[in-house]
Amino acid sequence: MKHNKITKLFNIKYPIIQGGMIWVSGYKLAAAVSNAGGLGLIGAGSMYPDVLREHIQKCKKATDKPFGVNIPLFYPDLDEILKIIIDEGVKIVFTSAGNPKLYTKYFQEHNIKVVHVVSSVKFALKSQEAGVDAIVAEGFEAGGHNGREETTTFTLIPMVKEKINIPLIAAGGIATGKGMLAAMVLGADGVQIGSRFVASEESSAHINFKNSVVETKDAGTDLTLKELIPVRLIKNKFYYQVQDLYLKKPNIEQLKELLGRARAKKGMFEGDLENGELEIGQVAGLIHEINSAKEIIAEIIDEFEKTKQSLC
Amino acid sequence: MKHNKITKLFNIKYPIIQGGMIWVSGYKLAAAVSNAGGLGLIGAGSMYPDVLREHIQKCKKATDKPFGVNIPLFYPDLDEILKIIIDEGVKIVFTSAGNPKLYTKYFQEHNIKVVHVVSSVKFALKSQEAGVDAIVAEGFEAGGHNGREETTTFTLIPMVKEKINIPLIAAGGIATGKGMLAAMVLGADGVQIGSRFVASEESSAHINFKNSVVETKDAGTDLTLKELIPVRLIKNKFYYQVQDLYLKKPNIEQLKELLGRARAKKGMFEGDLENGELEIGQVAGLIHEINSAKEIIAEIIDEFEKTKQSLC
Repeated sequence: MKHNKITKLFNIKYPIIQGGMIWVSGYKLAAAVSNAGGLGLIGAGSMYPDVLREHIQKCKKATDKPFGVNIPLFYPDLDEILKIIIDEGVKIVFTSAGNPKLYTKYFQEHNIKVVHVVSSVKFALKSQEAGVDAIVAEGFEAGGHNGREETTTFTLIPMVKEKINIPLIAAGGIATGKGMLAAMVLGADGVQIGSRFVASEESSAHINFKNSVVETKDAGTDLTLKELIPVRLIKNKFYYQVQDLYLKKPNIEQLKELLGRARAKKGMFEGDLENGELEIGQVAGLIHEINSAKEIIAEIIDEFEKTKQSLC
Repeated sequence: MKHNKITKLFNIKYPIIQGGMIWVSGYKLAAAVSNAGGLGLIGAGSMYPDVLREHIQKCKKATDKPFGVNIPLFYPDLDEILKIIIDEGVKIVFTSAGNPKLYTKYFQEHNIKVVHVVSSVKFALKSQEAGVDAIVAEGFEAGGHNGREETTTFTLIPMVKEKINIPLIAAGGIATGKGMLAAMVLGADGVQIGSRFVASEESSAHINFKNSVVETKDAGTDLTLKELIPVRLIKNKFYYQVQDLYLKKPNIEQLKELLGRARAKKGMFEGDLENGELEIGQVAGLIHEINSAKEIIAEIIDEFEKTKQSLC
């Protein structure tokens, strides 16, 4: 994998990026993934600025390998976050949920590589025009917040690949070596994996949530709350409350009121499986145990190589 | 591909099945696909019994290769259809949208191979228990009527593969050789391709609809009318009328009234691009020209083989 565009771009061993997820991916997970040869990302989306600074500092101590930070561009304290990223010498930033033109040049002037997450060909092209170093194209099956186009990984990757010439990372539905190989056959240079790392030993997800991921089967998630920001959740008690409310044809205010605040923290970090939002991808149905990040990456690479050999 | 489970099951050259689609796949398309080494299917769903009989008879004259018939099990004249299938000596039947236990044994007693189309692991297992010869697992990205689970091809195929041991055909999102290889990497033994064959010379789709498929881009389709039967359509004037009605929070009767009758025929067969239902998969965004069935299959196999070689 020495000639792979993603391993070269980030100076890593395997073209596997760990998704920077709220409440799940602190420095422990990011460092473990980076130490195992992938690229770990700290998920800034659920961190106050001080917390993010602490995680970056701890990550630098926990690994001498490259790692990055994922920043949703609607983050309220964005200026403070940007300052911390620069101050702490972060070298790789993944941005999502916003306009890639806003900060790409700024980061790059500080020698930071920038990757933007998109869910359509249109935004892939906009990202390329903005000068990003790579694109993550994320399909409908992905967990958590998700694009409105509902284009799946299987069709999004080749459609984006047709139009762009910068490195392309596939996300959504990938948890195994076969999934990684399939994504690369479809045109990806590397993969971003989220759900599988939720169920890792080093993730900061609550153990109840990790167990819940392992128990989730096919059809166990749904993309809902589309009137707010579409989000893929495990079908738990809270999810069914949302569905019940839909039967009453609610307006947006009523949906917001039911959602309330901090549902994701409650479910994913505090382990309230009934009342929390449990953000996970459809691929949870393929995740059967909690492993260390090192085991996960070793298993994925082993399956990837064996499957590739079996085709020859 | 001599040792492939699907080519052996149907005695065909390539593990490519042409989806049996309403208003699109008459005997001309089915025979052309079978003559090119795939398995052509006549789509009975839009045919009166007499029309189906005529298409089967013409197909037998147009090819000496195996072909099949796709039968939605909610078909109103089902008994008459079953009689025609037996009378005319059809050897392969694909069933969908119903209980696989109802007719599988009956067909098999008449030396007919039976394949059932599913969109979940649960129904894949039910189909296997019913004794079907193979399963089509169809993802959310597929065109036309679609499962309620919304599981995508990328995640559905490996999840079904984990649980069943009979031959598995992947459907939804596949139009190219790379797509075929990716589906097989994920665990499929063969592929079913619909949208690509809509835009074939031999399909009975109206030329306006074929051109519309070629022009469709990513995010150009949506799965809608979920309160009735979920259906993936091109976002045309009729589609936006449905979306406008949704803003008024309609009941099911109002949706049925807007849908009316024969919308699919109007759009797909008669070429009314504004008022018709135009059923197509997300993969339309990868379809750029109208080709003959022979060209399509040759191109897919060529890309499949070259992509496989490039991995070795």
